[in-house]
Amino acid sequence: MSTPPTLVALLHGPDQPGLVAKVAGWIFARGGNILHADQHRDMEAGVFFQRVEWISAAPAGQVERERAEFSAFAASLGMQARVSDTSQRLRVVVMVSKADHCFHDLALRWRAGEFAGELVAAVSNHPDMAGVAQGYGLPYHVVPVTAETKAAAEAKQLALFNEYRADLVILARYMQVLSAGFLDSIGRPVINIHHSFLPAFAGGRPYHQAHARGVKLIGATAHYATRDLDEGPIIHQDVGRVTHRHGVEDLIRMGRDLEKRVLAQAVRWHLDHRVLAYGNKTVVFD
Amino acid sequence: MSTPPTLVALLHGPDQPGLVAKVAGWIFARGGNILHADQHRDMEAGVFFQRVEWISAAPAGQVERERAEFSAFAASLGMQARVSDTSQRLRVVVMVSKADHCFHDLALRWRAGEFAGELVAAVSNHPDMAGVAQGYGLPYHVVPVTAETKAAAEAKQLALFNEYRADLVILARYMQVLSAGFLDSIGRPVINIHHSFLPAFAGGRPYHQAHARGVKLIGATAHYATRDLDEGPIIHQDVGRVTHRHGVEDLIRMGRDLEKRVLAQAVRWHLDHRVLAYGNKTVVFD
Amino acid sequence: MSTPPTLVALLHGPDQPGLVAKVAGWIFARGGNILHADQHRDMEAGVFFQRVEWISAAPAGQVERERAEFSAFAASLGMQARVSDTSQRLRVVVMVSKADHCFHDLALRWRAGEFAGELVAAVSNHPDMAGVAQGYGLPYHVVPVTAETKAAAEAKQLALFNEYRADLVILARYMQVLSAGFLDSIGRPVINIHHSFLPAFAGGRPYHQAHARGVKLIGATAHYATRDLDEGPIIHQDVGRVTHRHGVEDLIRMGRDLEKRVLAQAVRWHLDHRVLAYGNKTVVFD
Amino acid sequence: MSTPPTLVALLHGPDQPGLVAKVAGWIFARGGNILHADQHRDMEAGVFFQRVEWISAAPAGQVERERAEFSAFAASLGMQARVSDTSQRLRVVVMVSKADHCFHDLALRWRAGEFAGELVAAVSNHPDMAGVAQGYGLPYHVVPVTAETKAAAEAKQLALFNEYRADLVILARYMQVLSAGFLDSIGRPVINIHHSFLPAFAGGRPYHQAHARGVKLIGATAHYATRDLDEGPIIHQDVGRVTHRHGVEDLIRMGRDLEKRVLAQAVRWHLDHRVLAYGNKTVVFD
Repeated sequence: MSTPPTLVALLHGPDQPGLVAKVAGWIFARGGNILHADQHRDMEAGVFFQRVEWISAAPAGQVERERAEFSAFAASLGMQARVSDTSQRLRVVVMVSKADHCFHDLALRWRAGEFAGELVAAVSNHPDMAGVAQGYGLPYHVVPVTAETKAAAEAKQLALFNEYRADLVILARYMQVLSAGFLDSIGRPVINIHHSFLPAFAGGRPYHQAHARGVKLIGATAHYATRDLDEGPIIHQDVGRVTHRHGVEDLIRMGRDLEKRVLAQAVRWHLDHRVLAYGNKTVVFD
Repeated sequence: MSTPPTLVALLHGPDQPGLVAKVAGWIFARGGNILHADQHRDMEAGVFFQRVEWISAAPAGQVERERAEFSAFAASLGMQARVSDTSQRLRVVVMVSKADHCFHDLALRWRAGEFAGELVAAVSNHPDMAGVAQGYGLPYHVVPVTAETKAAAEAKQLALFNEYRADLVILARYMQVLSAGFLDSIGRPVINIHHSFLPAFAGGRPYHQAHARGVKLIGATAHYATRDLDEGPIIHQDVGRVTHRHGVEDLIRMGRDLEKRVLAQAVRWHLDHRVLAYGNKTVVFD
Repeated sequence: MSTPPTLVALLHGPDQPGLVAKVAGWIFARGGNILHADQHRDMEAGVFFQRVEWISAAPAGQVERERAEFSAFAASLGMQARVSDTSQRLRVVVMVSKADHCFHDLALRWRAGEFAGELVAAVSNHPDMAGVAQGYGLPYHVVPVTAETKAAAEAKQLALFNEYRADLVILARYMQVLSAGFLDSIGRPVINIHHSFLPAFAGGRPYHQAHARGVKLIGATAHYATRDLDEGPIIHQDVGRVTHRHGVEDLIRMGRDLEKRVLAQAVRWHLDHRVLAYGNKTVVFD
Repeated sequence: MSTPPTLVALLHGPDQPGLVAKVAGWIFARGGNILHADQHRDMEAGVFFQRVEWISAAPAGQVERERAEFSAFAASLGMQARVSDTSQRLRVVVMVSKADHCFHDLALRWRAGEFAGELVAAVSNHPDMAGVAQGYGLPYHVVPVTAETKAAAEAKQLALFNEYRADLVILARYMQVLSAGFLDSIGRPVINIHHSFLPAFAGGRPYHQAHARGVKLIGATAHYATRDLDEGPIIHQDVGRVTHRHGVEDLIRMGRDLEKRVLAQAVRWHLDHRVLAYGNKTVVFD
C-alpha cells in the first residue's frame, strides 16, 4: 500500500558462477535493500535470467542515475538489463475493434487499482466504442483501416502511440492484422489476446475451428505480437471445459471470459515488470 | 451397488418430433423403468442423439430378445442404435510398450472396481512389462514389431483380440503406429491416449514440441483411433500448468499424471456406454 | 437465436416407474416437441427430479393454459412442478453496497445478451453506485439501513421488489444481513454470493480467515439465501490457487474474479430454469 | 540428470536489510555457485524466509562442515537454518491402514524416480497390505492398535522409525488418530493427507459430510500433522468438481484421485526441501 518506490531490473545473459552474489552485492554496496530476487537458468541454452527488485537508497533526484549505473554494471557482466522505476507508472494504449468485453474488463480493473499502469487512450478502426471510452474518461481515436489505407492508418497509429508516450500497446480483440513493418517500427511491446489455446487453432475464427474439431476444452492465449502472426512469445494461457452441448455461440460466449482473464493477467504481469521475453518464449517471474 | 442389470441404448439419427416420447413409450409399454435418459440435438446437422438406460421387465432369458427388438424399433424411427446389457461386462485388451504408468493406473482402477469392464490381457511389442502384468494376474503377449514384420504382427494382434473376445482395445502409450488396414479390420473400438492437447502438437515427441514453443499449459487427449492419425474423435482432454522452470523432463513427468487421468476417464465413460462417436466428434453423456 | 418460445418444467416428487414416459407422453399427446429432458433420481431419498423443455403446439393465447394443465398433470403424479414460459423474461433486481465488481459484471453480461432475463433496478444501502447504475440505464434506489431502521428499510425493499415485479433478487456483495422475517416474506428466490468456499470460512471477513489459516486455495460460493445464514442451497462454487506470496489484499483482488464468475454462472443457470432447490441442496440441470 | 550434489538451506528469521546480499556473499566467498535462490517476506510479521541451493566447492569430505558453518552463519544473522545435502536422499516410512490407493501411488512414483528420497518401510495397523508392500520390495510391519494397546503401539512405531532412520513419516490414509505425546516425541516431520478441503469438513467421514451439505467441489489437503488434529500447516490442496449426480460412493472414488495427487505433490516438495513451516502455515518455494 504505502510501499516506497522501487527499482526493478530484468536481466539476462550467458550464465556464469557468482551472478546472484554479484548483483546482490552491487545493490547492497549502494545501500539498497532487495525486496524480491528471483532467477532462472535455462540449462540447455546456458542463459541466466533474473528479476530483482530493491528499495534504492538514492535520493529522489538520483534514481535515474542508479538505473543507468545498474545497466552499465549488468553490461559489464555480459548481461542485458531493463531497469524500471516503479514510481513511473507505465502508459498504456488499448486498440479495439467492435468486441468490447476485453476493453471493459481492462478499464474496470484499471479503475479498481489492479494495474501498475495508466490507460491513457483507446484507438479503434471503428467508431462503435466511442461512448464506452468516454464513460471511462479515455480519449478515443478512430483510425479506419482498409487495404488501400493500411499504410497511412499505421502511420497515424504510430503517431498516436508517440503522442501518448505509450509504454505498452494492448490489442484487446483488435481485428486487423498488423504489418511486419509496423511491428518493426513500433518500438514498444505489444500484447495480443488470441482466442484459442495456441498453437492450436491459429489464424481466423478459432472457435469455429474448435467446434468443428470437437475439442473438449477451449482456450485463450496472451502473447507478445511479433512479425510472425500468432507465433510470438506466450505470456499466459488458460482453458475452459466445453461439451457436445455447446454450439459455436456458446464457445464464443465462454471464450469471452477466458479472453478477459488471460489478457488481464498478462497485462498485470507485464506492468509489474515480471515478464522477460527471449526468443519465442517468456520467463514470467510470478 | 445392488443395482439390477439394465439395458443401455445409444441412439442417433435424423431429428424429428416425438422421438423422446416414442422411445420412452416403447420401454414403458414393455414394463421397463427408465433410470436415465439424456438426449442431445445437433441443431446444425439436424441429428438427434440419445442415451437411455432402463430396467427391463423381461425375464432373464429374454433380455437378448429385448435388445434386438429395441434395435429394430430404433431402425423403424430411422435411427441407429447400440444396445448393451450391463450385466455383460465388456472385455478389454490393453496394448503397451515400455512406459508403464498408464498400465499400472488402469490395472489398479480395475482392481479397485472403478471400471464396468474386465481387463483380460495385455499385448506389447516389448517384453519389459511381463512381470508387471503377471503381478496383476493378466496374460501378457509379446508381439515384436519391425518394419518388415508389421503385417504379420498386426495379424497376430488381431488374432489375440479375437481369442480374448475383446470388446475394447486400449492403446496405453503403445508406441507403434497402427496401419490403416489394421484399423479397418479391427472391428472393435480402440481408445488411444495422445500426450498433448490435440490438435496442438500432433505427431511425435509432443512434450518436446510444447517445450520448444514455450506454452504455459500441457495437455493430454484420449480419442478413438482412426485411420487418420491423431485425428479421431476426442473423448476427453485435460491440461496442467507449466512454467519456464519446467524442462522437457518435467513436462514428461507431469504429463504422466495427465495421461493417466484422461485415459482412465475416457475408458470409464466408454465402459459405461456413455460415449457416442459420430463423424470426427463424440457426444459424451456424462 | 431464432429459437421459438418454449415451456420449461422443473418437477420433483416421489420416484415411481414410468414417470419419464408419462411426462413425455403428455407433451407428445398435445403436439409438443421435447427439446431437452434431463432427470435425476436421489436413490437414498427416493425422489425423482426432472427438467423438461418443449415447444408447445398451443396457439399464443393458450400457452398459459398449457402451463396450468401441466402443473395439474404433475400434481396427479404426486409431483410439484414449476412451469415457465421462456418468452416471459424474468425480471431481476440487484442489491449492492459499495463493492461494484459484481454489479458491473452482471450489467455487462446482461447488455451482452448473456442472460435470459432483464435487470430492472438496483437497490443499495449506499448512494455510491448511483452513477454506475445510471450509466447502465438502471433505476437506483438508496435504502439506508441501520439497526434502528432495519425493519422499515426491509419493508421499503419489499415494496420495491413488488413495484418492479421482481422474479429474482441478487445480493451482489450486499453487505447487510437480511432478517429471517424478510426472507420469509420475500416471496421470490434470492441468490447470494459468499466470498469463500462454503462451508469453510462462513461468516464475516472470509479472506482474512483464509489468510490466517494458510489455505492454498480460495473460493466463492453462490447459494440461495435462506434464514440460516450461509447455509442455503449451494448453486455453484469455484476456487483459485493462492500461495504464501499473496497477502489479504491479493486474496481480495483475486477473489473478485471468482465472485464475478461464480455469481454470473449461478444467475445464468437460474434464469435458464436449470436449478431446482430441495432441502439444503440443489439439482443443477446444466 | 547428472546434476552435481548441492546444498539447500531453508532459512527464516527477523527481516533486516541486506540479507539476500549477505547470504549470497557468504556462499560466493567460499567458491559456491548459487543455482536457485528464492525468498519471501511476511510484511505483517516482519519475517524473512529464504530457500537457497548451491553447488558447494568443498571437497567431498568437507561438505558436512560447510553445512554446519552455514548454520552458524545464519544464526549470526538471527536466523534459523535447516541445511540439507541433496546427495543424502531422505528416508521415508509410510503408514497405512486398509485403503491402498495412496500407497500404490507413492510406491510407483518412487520407483519411477519422481521422488528425491527412498521409501524404506511400511507400517500398518492391519495385515492387509503385506503382499502389496512385498511386491514393491518394502518391509512391512504390522502394529495393531486398540484403545488399550495404543501407548505400546506408538512406542513400537517410534522404535521402527528410529530403526529405519526415517527422515519423514507419511500418513497415507492411516486411519488412527496419533496421540499428542506421540507427535511431541516423534522428532521428524509427519505429512498427512486429509480427504477434504480443510478447514471444511474436518473430522471423520468428510465425503459424507460434503454430500450432506451439497457442495459442488470436493477437495483434499496435505498438511503436517500436529497435536491439533486437522489444524497443522497446509502444504497443498486441490479440488474436483461434483454434481448432484454423484453419490457418496462417487465422491469417495473421485476423492481417491485427489488424495493421490495432492499427497504426492506435497511429499515431492518436502523431499526437494521446498517447504518451510512456521506457525500454522507453510511457505512453499516451488
